Amino acid sequence: MERHNYPVGELRLLASARSAGRTIEVGSFSGKIVEATPEAFRGLDFAIFSAGGSVSQALAPTVAKEGVVVIDNSSAFRQDPEVPLVVPEINPEAAKAHRGIVANPNCSTAIALMGLYPLHREFGLRSVVASTYQAVSGSGTGGVLELEAQLKAWAKGETAANTVYPHQIAFNVLPHVDCFEENGYTKEEMKMLREGRKIMDLPELAVSCTCVRVPVLRAHSMSLTASFDKPVDLERARETIRAFPGVELQDEPAANRYPLPLERSGKEACAVGRLRKDLVMPNGLSFWVVGDQLWKGAALNALQIAELLFPPSA
Amino acid sequence: MERHNYPVGELRLLASARSAGRTIEVGSFSGKIVEATPEAFRGLDFAIFSAGGSVSQALAPTVAKEGVVVIDNSSAFRQDPEVPLVVPEINPEAAKAHRGIVANPNCSTAIALMGLYPLHREFGLRSVVASTYQAVSGSGTGGVLELEAQLKAWAKGETAANTVYPHQIAFNVLPHVDCFEENGYTKEEMKMLREGRKIMDLPELAVSCTCVRVPVLRAHSMSLTASFDKPVDLERARETIRAFPGVELQDEPAANRYPLPLERSGKEACAVGRLRKDLVMPNGLSFWVVGDQLWKGAALNALQIAELLFPPSA
Repeated sequence: MERHNYPVGELRLLASARSAGRTIEVGSFSGKIVEATPEAFRGLDFAIFSAGGSVSQALAPTVAKEGVVVIDNSSAFRQDPEVPLVVPEINPEAAKAHRGIVANPNCSTAIALMGLYPLHREFGLRSVVASTYQAVSGSGTGGVLELEAQLKAWAKGETAANTVYPHQIAFNVLPHVDCFEENGYTKEEMKMLREGRKIMDLPELAVSCTCVRVPVLRAHSMSLTASFDKPVDLERARETIRAFPGVELQDEPAANRYPLPLERSGKEACAVGRLRKDLVMPNGLSFWVVGDQLWKGAALNALQIAELLFPPSA
Repeated sequence: MERHNYPVGELRLLASARSAGRTIEVGSFSGKIVEATPEAFRGLDFAIFSAGGSVSQALAPTVAKEGVVVIDNSSAFRQDPEVPLVVPEINPEAAKAHRGIVANPNCSTAIALMGLYPLHREFGLRSVVASTYQAVSGSGTGGVLELEAQLKAWAKGETAANTVYPHQIAFNVLPHVDCFEENGYTKEEMKMLREGRKIMDLPELAVSCTCVRVPVLRAHSMSLTASFDKPVDLERARETIRAFPGVELQDEPAANRYPLPLERSGKEACAVGRLRKDLVMPNGLSFWVVGDQLWKGAALNALQIAELLFPPSA
């Protein structure tokens, strides 16, 4: 909020009883954590929930009923037909029609859609095959610390255990993000289909995804192959990406210029590059999208929803 | 050859004039490097070439004419209609019909085909969408040293330069392996199509590939989505993989068991897992293949060609 000069009248830090009483410093703000009872939210315009599905499930409906708009970062309400699932560049009108709760999408999905949606508007999206390269910060601080500990141990000729991931992540890639469903896909992989359909209002969209954790600290990358209703003109596709807010075109392969997770870390905009006609799918386009999932996949998107519903000028 | 107990009557180490005279120890063998003039090959049964395309181009035809079978690890002859391109588990008969030179395929292609070919025999392969996760040893020792230097520098709070790759590879992934062609694909990406067609004798096969370098030392991984003529029965697909030589099935996601590059390093067999019905392609199957590209993508495959043409018992 500070970075966006979003005016904050009052900021309350709410958490479980376990954390209550601790003092937290955030930017120029310093405050004490208060226990998140339903009463503790009273009088706020909105509350950003980021404490996992069960907390959201238990608390959000009560808080919303009290007139506090809940912007929920968990997956608890994303598929609830009463709750809009919003990427502000894509479906802002859905956010405005909320009934007390607005859901913030899955990080990989939000980033993928920043490339897919502008192309959809131009060419009509039919299907997507996606493979991801996801950073360890997607698993929280624990993922970052685990990769760093393993690499520091390696540099000293030692080894470090793994507790966050089922296997060593240093010098490895794990085709396993989130838990497995009956159909052999992980929940994370199915989110790309379920959330993509809802956000873009494309109930028939076909999506097949493989989610892979890689030893990158921050920013998710993905290889996307999409099929469209209309033939894709490459130059038109590039212009479409260039004109869309929140996304940059980095597509000069001859100059070694394409989106990279290390370069994208800490940046708000997602980046799209390596656009080329696909050699398999009808009216197909293959491309590469990178975004800092702590921004577009989480904090930034939640803030954008707040800016949309409670604009600073109001 | 030692690992396979392949009987070696005489081993000659041939290289450029620059390396001539150096003594090399390989396993229990020790010998001096001799300059690779055409005469230096005389009397050998076969020669394994691994010195890049231009050396192969200049020397292989002359050596082959002298009756020495050239097993060439470069890309120089892979698309030559006179030269068989061979994965011994897939097209051994092509190797036997050689006219002096046999080409060893690209590493990613060889590994992908170890998963694709058995499924093709069962269901009839039509098209493939592939995304790779390629180890730095694919760029030679230089790639390994560069990643290690960058990580050791990081552990000391320093930074290390990049010379092998156009960008830092530690904590990064690069959608750039080999150089770019006119159509926006890299040469490496097009090899999956061109070499896949030739090895499997499927001139109409459609392949779209995205090749990505990841901070893994050894073993290439790939996410594959394939479309077949016949509907794919998952249990039959698993049996087909299990029954194929040179490949292991590792497909128990509930037990966190799937192919991993770190575990696969140093193993001859490739591994296939995460088999599931694809949600986009007709008669589609998505899966994950990992192989040690220094083995199946290079040394092992070359040795297997030698074992096929000059069997130890003969």
